Amino acid sequence: MRDVAVIGVGITKFGELWNKSFRQLTAEAGSKAILDSGVDGKDIDAMYVGSMSSGRFVGQEHIGALVADASGFSHLHIPSTRVEGACASGGLAIRQGYLSIASGMNDVVIVGGIEKMNDVGGTSATETLATAADQEWESFFGVTFPGLYAMMAKRHMYEFGTTKEQLAKVAVKNHANGVKNPNAQYQMEITVDKALNASPVADPLGLLDCSPVTDGAAAVVLCSVEKAKEFTQKPLVKIIGSGQASDTLSLHGRRSITTLDATVHAANMAYKQSNKSPSDIDFAEVHDCFTIAEICAIEDLGFVEKGKGGYAVDQNITTFDGSKPVNTSGGLKSKGHPVGATGVAQIVEVAQQLRGDAGNRQLSNPHVGLAHNVGGSGATCVIHIMEGM
Amino acid sequence: MRDVAVIGVGITKFGELWNKSFRQLTAEAGSKAILDSGVDGKDIDAMYVGSMSSGRFVGQEHIGALVADASGFSHLHIPSTRVEGACASGGLAIRQGYLSIASGMNDVVIVGGIEKMNDVGGTSATETLATAADQEWESFFGVTFPGLYAMMAKRHMYEFGTTKEQLAKVAVKNHANGVKNPNAQYQMEITVDKALNASPVADPLGLLDCSPVTDGAAAVVLCSVEKAKEFTQKPLVKIIGSGQASDTLSLHGRRSITTLDATVHAANMAYKQSNKSPSDIDFAEVHDCFTIAEICAIEDLGFVEKGKGGYAVDQNITTFDGSKPVNTSGGLKSKGHPVGATGVAQIVEVAQQLRGDAGNRQLSNPHVGLAHNVGGSGATCVIHIMEGM
Repeated sequence: MRDVAVIGVGITKFGELWNKSFRQLTAEAGSKAILDSGVDGKDIDAMYVGSMSSGRFVGQEHIGALVADASGFSHLHIPSTRVEGACASGGLAIRQGYLSIASGMNDVVIVGGIEKMNDVGGTSATETLATAADQEWESFFGVTFPGLYAMMAKRHMYEFGTTKEQLAKVAVKNHANGVKNPNAQYQMEITVDKALNASPVADPLGLLDCSPVTDGAAAVVLCSVEKAKEFTQKPLVKIIGSGQASDTLSLHGRRSITTLDATVHAANMAYKQSNKSPSDIDFAEVHDCFTIAEICAIEDLGFVEKGKGGYAVDQNITTFDGSKPVNTSGGLKSKGHPVGATGVAQIVEVAQQLRGDAGNRQLSNPHVGLAHNVGGSGATCVIHIMEGM
Repeated sequence: MRDVAVIGVGITKFGELWNKSFRQLTAEAGSKAILDSGVDGKDIDAMYVGSMSSGRFVGQEHIGALVADASGFSHLHIPSTRVEGACASGGLAIRQGYLSIASGMNDVVIVGGIEKMNDVGGTSATETLATAADQEWESFFGVTFPGLYAMMAKRHMYEFGTTKEQLAKVAVKNHANGVKNPNAQYQMEITVDKALNASPVADPLGLLDCSPVTDGAAAVVLCSVEKAKEFTQKPLVKIIGSGQASDTLSLHGRRSITTLDATVHAANMAYKQSNKSPSDIDFAEVHDCFTIAEICAIEDLGFVEKGKGGYAVDQNITTFDGSKPVNTSGGLKSKGHPVGATGVAQIVEVAQQLRGDAGNRQLSNPHVGLAHNVGGSGATCVIHIMEGM
């Protein structure tokens, strides 16, 4: 397999973007990434797009073609493919772009992620998001994602003594990071008290335990390492490990609901390929769709022992100044969660940190970063490990 | 890039399958392909699934995970990814599976295609299919796919003198082939008279110029050629060319509406990779969603000169006994068109013909076959060229 690098990144503001359409968001993120990379449109061999449910949100399937068209590439007739795996759609699109270069088929690939969830004519966001769960065994009976993750949180508390305060601290940390991210949806600090007293959503999760409904897009330009120097003099960020795994679609079929086995398997695959272990990871973007999800993630990724996620939060291990900073971008909680864009936005953050481009949230000289993107309640997970060159 | 072969195929009956669910169809096609291939579940490194609009048809996104789960593989945690490009979703899934093996990442990959379009709770099939066209510039104003292809037919008639009789003969030929396919939705002969006198749908297209609304699934097992002999003694079918291209999402943006430039570009890519020319292709499955689409396809693939597609039909070039048999399976017209499954079903037919497994519709000793899969009115095209080994 050929080596692949990220050579350009682009991202839109995340938020309730009432004045920006699906097409505008995709063109904005894509053109930023292309400008950043130094490639011309004619250099691009293929496009991949992650989107969870454009068919339901904006009444439009076939968005691989739409994105190529909206980006002004229709006359180039380049292959453009949409990839979907619920909230992991963006990460899966990255993986397909990566494989298409690693295979030797392509040299330069642009990967976008997009979701337009506000100001749309389709069904409600909650109803559409529930199509990522098992329609026949879960959604039909009324459970939505806050409910599914609330069950995971309850069980984590029961098994490991995790507390609501520890959940709240995850949100406080991610908001503290998001304040420093000009593209974040919620650039405001919160407190543990505020999180604990927020409106209940699904016990034990309150409003500030939940990621928001967001519009946004992100894009990266991937290139074979051997060709990258033709386009850019910026530091290259190499993808050194890519892992993906699946699990039962419904929560009840799993051996445990406090461990995401898809995370464990995807992580093992990525660690093995990159020849890295959890202790080699300097920082990570993890899929904190709910605060409990971040606690499970840092355990399942091997950053801390199973059951010690809450304790790690208490010890400030994952804060910006901690030994293993997690979600320096603000995470899904504060940056926002346009579901199909999230996995690509994580790669944008990891690449910016590794290039030293992260502005006033720049970590001190990180070498290896990890992006962890989950679909549904954990039926899909995709992980990328990246290294500065 | 490593060489990749098809080592197993499976397909369900196509039709209005009121007694079979989405899950059942996917498990049936997948298990048939696995049995045919000689691999065990534990040998499978990854899955890809093509589906156009499961989110709207059956209220379920995230079907990569669902299909792995329904196939009994959840405990194996294998990567499973859904790919979407409207009616080209199946062909795109094949291409991703192919690339993932060619890259060296995987050895054995199962690729499925599925659509459940009848007996579903979502919006009407016509409305959901229209999400493959440009929602803002086409569908919103009321045009549906029969209307779009009718415009292409009208223009083809105007430019090249193509006749309604020639369109009808495409349907007659494909029904004659479909009679010999036990999985076809419509196993009945029709006549030119019957086609010409069928209920009008969108002038000049009548009911028998249009492919039907269909439930069905298909699957293939792909394997690196170097590993294939570990699993099967059956003849291998090698993928020697893979091409994909895009075009404007809407019809009005194109330089011509009688040529699908996406087909032309995807074909050039596949011909170049395989070192074959149109004259080397012994037979083809082409995307006859409407009769006019087959006439454009045989021109755009270079089988006949531009504008001579209707004439070629008159000359019986594309019949079962002609010099270039097209749609021996019955095509989308007679076999049926479960949109996400179609591209995979085409690969099933080409592989069966090349292995000599096509039953009473077996061609005499074919060596090279082509599969041509189109999304929407031609904004996506994916083409595979395959050779018996």
